[in-house]
Amino acid sequence: MSEAGIPAAPLTLEGSSVLHQMFRIRWSAWRRASGQEILDEAIPALEAMGPRTALFGLLGHKGDLLFLHFRDSFEELHQAELALARLRLADYLEATTSYLSVVELGLYESSVKLYQGLRDLGVEPLSEEWERACEAMLAQQAKAMHPRLYPEIPPRRYLCFYPMDKKRGESRNWYELPIQDRQGLMHEHGLIGRRYAGSVKQIISGSIGFDDWEWGVDLFADDPLVFKKLIYEMRFDQASAAYALFGKFYLGLRYSVSDLGALLSGTPSP
Amino acid sequence: MSEAGIPAAPLTLEGSSVLHQMFRIRWSAWRRASGQEILDEAIPALEAMGPRTALFGLLGHKGDLLFLHFRDSFEELHQAELALARLRLADYLEATTSYLSVVELGLYESSVKLYQGLRDLGVEPLSEEWERACEAMLAQQAKAMHPRLYPEIPPRRYLCFYPMDKKRGESRNWYELPIQDRQGLMHEHGLIGRRYAGSVKQIISGSIGFDDWEWGVDLFADDPLVFKKLIYEMRFDQASAAYALFGKFYLGLRYSVSDLGALLSGTPSP
Amino acid sequence: MSEAGIPAAPLTLEGSSVLHQMFRIRWSAWRRASGQEILDEAIPALEAMGPRTALFGLLGHKGDLLFLHFRDSFEELHQAELALARLRLADYLEATTSYLSVVELGLYESSVKLYQGLRDLGVEPLSEEWERACEAMLAQQAKAMHPRLYPEIPPRRYLCFYPMDKKRGESRNWYELPIQDRQGLMHEHGLIGRRYAGSVKQIISGSIGFDDWEWGVDLFADDPLVFKKLIYEMRFDQASAAYALFGKFYLGLRYSVSDLGALLSGTPSP
Amino acid sequence: MSEAGIPAAPLTLEGSSVLHQMFRIRWSAWRRASGQEILDEAIPALEAMGPRTALFGLLGHKGDLLFLHFRDSFEELHQAELALARLRLADYLEATTSYLSVVELGLYESSVKLYQGLRDLGVEPLSEEWERACEAMLAQQAKAMHPRLYPEIPPRRYLCFYPMDKKRGESRNWYELPIQDRQGLMHEHGLIGRRYAGSVKQIISGSIGFDDWEWGVDLFADDPLVFKKLIYEMRFDQASAAYALFGKFYLGLRYSVSDLGALLSGTPSP
Amino acid sequence: MSEAGIPAAPLTLEGSSVLHQMFRIRWSAWRRASGQEILDEAIPALEAMGPRTALFGLLGHKGDLLFLHFRDSFEELHQAELALARLRLADYLEATTSYLSVVELGLYESSVKLYQGLRDLGVEPLSEEWERACEAMLAQQAKAMHPRLYPEIPPRRYLCFYPMDKKRGESRNWYELPIQDRQGLMHEHGLIGRRYAGSVKQIISGSIGFDDWEWGVDLFADDPLVFKKLIYEMRFDQASAAYALFGKFYLGLRYSVSDLGALLSGTPSP
Repeated sequence: MSEAGIPAAPLTLEGSSVLHQMFRIRWSAWRRASGQEILDEAIPALEAMGPRTALFGLLGHKGDLLFLHFRDSFEELHQAELALARLRLADYLEATTSYLSVVELGLYESSVKLYQGLRDLGVEPLSEEWERACEAMLAQQAKAMHPRLYPEIPPRRYLCFYPMDKKRGESRNWYELPIQDRQGLMHEHGLIGRRYAGSVKQIISGSIGFDDWEWGVDLFADDPLVFKKLIYEMRFDQASAAYALFGKFYLGLRYSVSDLGALLSGTPSP
Repeated sequence: MSEAGIPAAPLTLEGSSVLHQMFRIRWSAWRRASGQEILDEAIPALEAMGPRTALFGLLGHKGDLLFLHFRDSFEELHQAELALARLRLADYLEATTSYLSVVELGLYESSVKLYQGLRDLGVEPLSEEWERACEAMLAQQAKAMHPRLYPEIPPRRYLCFYPMDKKRGESRNWYELPIQDRQGLMHEHGLIGRRYAGSVKQIISGSIGFDDWEWGVDLFADDPLVFKKLIYEMRFDQASAAYALFGKFYLGLRYSVSDLGALLSGTPSP
Repeated sequence: MSEAGIPAAPLTLEGSSVLHQMFRIRWSAWRRASGQEILDEAIPALEAMGPRTALFGLLGHKGDLLFLHFRDSFEELHQAELALARLRLADYLEATTSYLSVVELGLYESSVKLYQGLRDLGVEPLSEEWERACEAMLAQQAKAMHPRLYPEIPPRRYLCFYPMDKKRGESRNWYELPIQDRQGLMHEHGLIGRRYAGSVKQIISGSIGFDDWEWGVDLFADDPLVFKKLIYEMRFDQASAAYALFGKFYLGLRYSVSDLGALLSGTPSP
Repeated sequence: MSEAGIPAAPLTLEGSSVLHQMFRIRWSAWRRASGQEILDEAIPALEAMGPRTALFGLLGHKGDLLFLHFRDSFEELHQAELALARLRLADYLEATTSYLSVVELGLYESSVKLYQGLRDLGVEPLSEEWERACEAMLAQQAKAMHPRLYPEIPPRRYLCFYPMDKKRGESRNWYELPIQDRQGLMHEHGLIGRRYAGSVKQIISGSIGFDDWEWGVDLFADDPLVFKKLIYEMRFDQASAAYALFGKFYLGLRYSVSDLGALLSGTPSP
Repeated sequence: MSEAGIPAAPLTLEGSSVLHQMFRIRWSAWRRASGQEILDEAIPALEAMGPRTALFGLLGHKGDLLFLHFRDSFEELHQAELALARLRLADYLEATTSYLSVVELGLYESSVKLYQGLRDLGVEPLSEEWERACEAMLAQQAKAMHPRLYPEIPPRRYLCFYPMDKKRGESRNWYELPIQDRQGLMHEHGLIGRRYAGSVKQIISGSIGFDDWEWGVDLFADDPLVFKKLIYEMRFDQASAAYALFGKFYLGLRYSVSDLGALLSGTPSP
């Protein structure tokens, strides 16, 4: 319960289940493999996954390929992961890392408004009436925001992925700030993102309880320099400067599954 | 000794010995193995372990399989671990991590009440009389709480496991708080858990002296989103916001041992 | 927005895309390989990359070879990375680490001057007029600084590479300093570099959004002791002493691609 | 020199040289090996090492076997390590970690008493006379404490091993406390240990200059739950709560060398 | 510039280039190798490196062998590293870590004296005249200290090596202390070392810009217990207690190159 007598946690909406899989290609083994046979099995199988699985080539030693899967449940993600693992192609891939999350919309503004309204009406926080009002708001928002909760993978050339936490330091602790203060910081943070909306598509997914960081951030753009400009500018806003903790960054180039052979031969067409 | 002249450590009860074993499947080797023969040895052996060993499929690169063992002693856990290691199946498994602990019930409320009662009676802390009173309370509680100390593995579809510590920072140090303050924080923390009791079953195990974190947390649910909602809400309570330090998170799907073949062929039925 | 009502982030210019690739040589395998054949394929391919790819021998266990690629885009860097990976030589190289960045010029001085000028003229920060003025300044500077944005790889004997961050500590946080203060600290920092300009050539690249640190620093010199003297002296300036966080350091000796055979035979001529 | 004009470092006594070696068993290779032949070489060699080498089975992925060696010098430890490495058994063991230290008795009480006595007599700290008095005290104590300096390995069923440091934080720094304060904290700490003396045997070894932590702690008991109770209770004393930093914990079950074959076949008798 | 108007960085002298190479022996492969042939190649090659390359056996899992090379340049160190890598022996060695540095003498006392003298004469810091005076002092000292800058490897039985940094914490920052304060702390620190001069030979090397820590420390002694006593005592002086950050510790026993065969057979004579 925050100081103002309203809950500290904002309400959130969850949508697609998301799995990032990063792989290093075993180039030596691949060079000696019957590549065409393996591709003849892999490409149709990957294409059968449809547009909710996307292929990226990664730059640098942290991986060569990234598969991004959006699904309706962890059950389906597990099926996708196993489907990939049972391909002969998997013999030539070494998993370097992965990230499990669900698309999340944090409803700071609506939550604070609802909480304050209910409190002003004298509704007991977390009472049945309170919970019903929250459920109603969530149901309404889930409907309105359906396209953002179950997005398609934006068809941009470049991907930037990184996980992040909000800091819980000894003197600077996001989770000890009043919800109204967090709402203000998130609002300021969102304004920066809005100015980049034309050139960067952003999908936030939540991973508390699922993976080692609290959120995953996926940015999609045709010009990778906008990732740098956007993130650098955000680093100075209070929500990031004081409270954000960042994991590793992954930079990928989108390829269609049919390019996989060219990618593995080292000669993809840009 | 805490400031109020009573011991700082709450009494705890210990129950089942617990081992989490996480494995990556060596898919390439498995694809070339005489799978059926290996399963014909492994499945009966695993089934012979009974309901106190459960199998989970893990999502992501941190592992493909998790075996959760509840036993009556470390001796028996060691037997289980060796029994698994001597299966031919073990040739196709690579241990990525593990966790050793014992089911624990922290008796903050009863301890504070008992300590204060004894102090008010003028009993010398840690005197023979004091210790006898503690032993008596523990014996009584152990009896009353037997089912929670030696639980069965909850038959839910999803598992969330993570280890955690209480922080000992330079200005925020759980172990320097008076026991009454810690009792209050744990009480508040417990209230959140109670609201989720219908949808999440929680088992806490202690690992001080046994493994690298102080506690292990296992959550069992049929809908994995409740893990996120519960842990996110708890992150704002004072016990977590200021004092909790979290390790890696593991997300598993429960399978029966008889599904192992389907799982290893990449085609488990959901 | 910084306190003075002007943006907190300085404007930056970006130039060449940069990839550092560090490799360990698989000496045992190489000793048994048909070395000449492999070199006959590799050397022409590497030479065809031209002067924007440079070869260094690394000291110590962190790697034996470093390839430094400057290109016009991440697309081209990816092509270079794949071209190297598809060489038979790659069978004898194990990637130990890498770094992805773009040459960056941070325009603290011009930005503060421009921001203050616009503010004094009453131009609304981030308004269309404001952005136009920024774009105009950037376009002009990009032209003037073209050789520094798209530099050639300095032909010095020694390379020192390391990544770095600016700290965001609980009490010391670079990103919470007013832009004028950061400008002053960067100015002081630059004065030290200027005194070493004759003996050290420095190229700064930015990697926010691309790799795990905020910047990469490449120093080139004929005498490696000047790396130590320069960095030690800088460590005492306020920008470094209080705010710099350093990653791993790599020390390399420049070799021409045609020396690769001698290097792999363990007998390069100095 | 501490504030009171006496040295800050307590005198210490050193005894046996200690090496912990943790190994993972290569189960797959072992399953295919001529096990009996290898054991026929290994068991007599290990038994020849006598009672100052003990064998433990470890729980969890951090290792399967732990060899604990007590010797009279690092020279002898090196001989033991090499003797093990040259066994054919070593082909089936993968070193996961190790710890090098010497049995240490920290003489806080005697040191403070001696230092204060000498100071009161007007002896110049660190003068020849001062050093002679220290040497004399050390010689006397070394004689009296010989059995604790050169202990046998306690014949208990369970081992708990972990390394630790004393913290040197920015505001909480063990090494900046006056020696009298540290003496008081160590005294309080020791009282807890003394209450467990019947059920736990503790051996402290020092590793400053030898390994990556300052001390190693070995606890031996027949009931592993007492490790948890002892360490948990100690975590609340000031010396641990504020100043202790812990490494990884290892939990082992003692086996006689003649059990090695049964252990490697996965079927040791408890 | 420090507060007193004099530079913050002390002058330093640099001498021999130093490379520590730590290797694990691949015991299994070695057991199956034509050991004598390999030694017949390796021993003469290593002996040809002369007394500026020394061989140590390491205790514990961090490595089995350590080669310590002192040379006149990084160029020569690179030659030594490559010469070792091209031996057939290298097939049986796995590099675990390494350290690159140059012997360094920090001239705190002379620097402060010179800086204050020049300031009192009204010489502008960092002016040409100032720099000339510094160069002159350095040239004179380099001559006087030549044997300490280009030392031979002390012929003691035991080696202790560790890297270290000076802390740059939020409230305790070595690099923000006035040079006079640092001089005082280093003086106090040096006094402890001097009392151990008879039993420990110490060589400090600087690695800023070359490797991941700021300094490497090599201690040489015939009795390894003095490493512990010296480092423990130093840990209480202010320079170490408040400002030192330590890396991993390596403990080695000196062997002559001709002992290599005995060492690899697991039977060196002490």
